[in-house]
Amino acid sequence: MNYYGDSVTRLIEELSRLPGIGGKSAQRLAFHIINMPKENAEALASAITSAKTSIGFCPVCCNLTDGGVCNICGEPSRDNGQIMVVEDPRDMAAYEKTKEFKGRYHILHGTISPINGIGPEKLKIKELLSRIKGDVREIIIATNPTVEGEATAMYLSGLLKPLGVKVTRIASGIPIGGDLEYADDVTLSKALEYRTEM
Amino acid sequence: MNYYGDSVTRLIEELSRLPGIGGKSAQRLAFHIINMPKENAEALASAITSAKTSIGFCPVCCNLTDGGVCNICGEPSRDNGQIMVVEDPRDMAAYEKTKEFKGRYHILHGTISPINGIGPEKLKIKELLSRIKGDVREIIIATNPTVEGEATAMYLSGLLKPLGVKVTRIASGIPIGGDLEYADDVTLSKALEYRTEM
Repeated sequence: MNYYGDSVTRLIEELSRLPGIGGKSAQRLAFHIINMPKENAEALASAITSAKTSIGFCPVCCNLTDGGVCNICGEPSRDNGQIMVVEDPRDMAAYEKTKEFKGRYHILHGTISPINGIGPEKLKIKELLSRIKGDVREIIIATNPTVEGEATAMYLSGLLKPLGVKVTRIASGIPIGGDLEYADDVTLSKALEYRTEM
Repeated sequence: MNYYGDSVTRLIEELSRLPGIGGKSAQRLAFHIINMPKENAEALASAITSAKTSIGFCPVCCNLTDGGVCNICGEPSRDNGQIMVVEDPRDMAAYEKTKEFKGRYHILHGTISPINGIGPEKLKIKELLSRIKGDVREIIIATNPTVEGEATAMYLSGLLKPLGVKVTRIASGIPIGGDLEYADDVTLSKALEYRTEM
């Protein structure tokens, strides 16, 4: 039943299509938007359209950018010898927040997943291979430690090693602050297997 | 730090201003929007702007509408003798879903709340008074049983009773399926005070 008129109902429907937004949340967001100052609502709408239209890939690392080389690739002080390969721009942002990694990134935009019809040709692997030149010493594969992420890591390793570059994988184990009691079996096994000397 | 370029960062910022949407959720929504088909993103943006620009109040009950009399007021089969007064269009929708009430509604768009600077003149009370004519038998006050809702109910009752109309208030008590152990003291007292004979 259309209680509030077509335009509010349409807004609620559009909002409820977003991930994690159910009917009640969509209704709450819609009423918030209706009560916003007009400029704010327009700013939100234009942010949606302009993100969709002006977005592109960085020609170097395939990060999202408004055009040209992305902010990370544009930093001259970074070490060109290390490239961290991640699945998604958010994974890159997560590592950037740690301020621990000073090399370059490469964003695959996905993982190999035959069940979803995603083969290696759909990922930014060609672009990664074209970056393996003289001064690249190490490729750090930082895909998620999931089935798809591990398969992608294995695949990349097989492609990269013959090019004479060092290929490493981020460590798996018990997260800091975690509890062995609640860790899954595979994590516990990995943590034992990759134990380090103290 | 602007990791993804200006347009994505702006979209994340705009989304994180919405209620109940934190930084992580805003990022997830933004990436979902970027990966949407272009038509869907445009539909969402246009739903936001059109809800904001085309929305107005029903001239009868003050419900939200795209223009003219709202869908509820437009139903000829409803009982004009009963008017249920609610705070918000969502409260009206909640009662409509029960399919138990076949009268008319009136939406106040808020409650009297001196602490927030909301006096009776900011609510749709004038519009309610103008509806009290010949065939109106009963006004059911269905504001929330909160401090502001109760104060508003008392205020309305004082205005309406001298007009010779019956004024009722929805019942307060233990909700169906609720547990006395977890009910608050005021609810328990009200449930006892308004007990009914079996």
